[in-house]
Amino acid sequence: MNDPRRLRVDGRAATGLPADDRGLAYGDGLFETLRVVAGRAPLWTWHMERLEEGCRRLRLACPVSGFLADEVSAAVDGLDDAVVRITWTAGSGPRGYARLAASQGRVIVAASPMRQVDAFVATHGVALFECATRWSLQPKLAGIKHLNRLEQVLARAEWDDPSFADGLMLDTDSRVISTTAASIGLVVDGVPMFPALNRCGVAGVGRRLALASLPDAVETDIGRAMLDSASEVFLASSVRGMLPVRAIGDRQYATGPVARGLQAAWTNAGMPPLCHPEQP
Amino acid sequence: MNDPRRLRVDGRAATGLPADDRGLAYGDGLFETLRVVAGRAPLWTWHMERLEEGCRRLRLACPVSGFLADEVSAAVDGLDDAVVRITWTAGSGPRGYARLAASQGRVIVAASPMRQVDAFVATHGVALFECATRWSLQPKLAGIKHLNRLEQVLARAEWDDPSFADGLMLDTDSRVISTTAASIGLVVDGVPMFPALNRCGVAGVGRRLALASLPDAVETDIGRAMLDSASEVFLASSVRGMLPVRAIGDRQYATGPVARGLQAAWTNAGMPPLCHPEQP
Repeated sequence: MNDPRRLRVDGRAATGLPADDRGLAYGDGLFETLRVVAGRAPLWTWHMERLEEGCRRLRLACPVSGFLADEVSAAVDGLDDAVVRITWTAGSGPRGYARLAASQGRVIVAASPMRQVDAFVATHGVALFECATRWSLQPKLAGIKHLNRLEQVLARAEWDDPSFADGLMLDTDSRVISTTAASIGLVVDGVPMFPALNRCGVAGVGRRLALASLPDAVETDIGRAMLDSASEVFLASSVRGMLPVRAIGDRQYATGPVARGLQAAWTNAGMPPLCHPEQP
Repeated sequence: MNDPRRLRVDGRAATGLPADDRGLAYGDGLFETLRVVAGRAPLWTWHMERLEEGCRRLRLACPVSGFLADEVSAAVDGLDDAVVRITWTAGSGPRGYARLAASQGRVIVAASPMRQVDAFVATHGVALFECATRWSLQPKLAGIKHLNRLEQVLARAEWDDPSFADGLMLDTDSRVISTTAASIGLVVDGVPMFPALNRCGVAGVGRRLALASLPDAVETDIGRAMLDSASEVFLASSVRGMLPVRAIGDRQYATGPVARGLQAAWTNAGMPPLCHPEQP
């Protein structure tokens, strides 16, 4: 591997994994991507809760969170600010969609140094590409962070202009759902809103922090046109934090008080500051 | 690995693969599962055509079929009748949905001995479970055999009664699409019919053989109720061959002339006979 990530498989330092893993064969598994700052993962409990919910929905055995915590510590050792991906799969299995009853699962933990979000971007916001690839509607998989991510891969492959930090994704009924790699929120008539995720989407941990910080926020169906009437649009990610959106196509947005408040909530949660100190 | 499959990764005998493969991370890749009889893959060209179409749709580089043929030969060496899975992924990459421009892809070839279809079953047919899990509608991924297969995994996990050989899957608009692991066809008023696959489903190679053998067949939207009015229902798989369906729920079907004709076409294509010789 070319990048300096550190890899552990099933509790040991490793370079690879068995090729009969069902995560590779069918995407039969889940993942979490989390920030670890000075050895601590501020949003750990919520990541574990989402992983447990994913196991329940996919009918997978659930890893023990204490074991995962030890694995994450071993992988990040020596990194001050790390991004860790925990992948939890249905483990090895013979050919075919049926899992073995005795399937034990497999855990893969990979750590890499955090590449900091540019403070200018965090202050002034990001521009979004408008992706043609849509979220399909599958209530059985909605909300969980499973390994079937081709829609996001295809959406992300639609642009290579680096002036777009991420891409807006609608569902096949033209509702606003997310960007390719973050949750999205908006403010309409002073009310913070997040897309309902009962048909598709990922229930982001950054989104959960945003919801916890905004007691008046609502989760609802959001048509594409509501973005035009929004006073603020922002992204929430458990890795990159809270980022204002400054443009979607021709529509420009100013950074507003809700996004600024979420950035304060991010810092208060134990994450590094996002903006220039002189630009609160 | 517990089963006697033989594994090759990127042209060499192997036991595993790099853990940063995008096939594991996001299901970013494709696969083909094919039958190799006495060193020959009778439906090879169609498998390669589907793989090429999948690469085009996913914007992946395409592997050279001559190289794949050599890899398959090396993996099946000594097996008279083998099932080979070719997995073609976007290769290794850093964290994130964006592929590296220089991504070269990775090929994984695994061979295992064919477990023969029971001749009694091939003669008298299989019973299907009715799965609650539906195909979601995603035209960008419809037809190709990509690695995002959680819907099939969830559908297959719905039953463990071995009297059901496979499970019927509808799409979210209640159209008949497939079983979890095979294509489905039916005969209504004497006309062979196959589900249209423009919104979801896998364009099976066994299905393609069936279509080539049935010049009057149509591909169309098939509502669930049409199964009740069908005189015959049958499955097509490039591994298991052509199998009559004898029951879906309370509805019973007799093995009919179309399924029998497809079994003859299967044998004529170079595959081993499916039925007892005394029961043509």
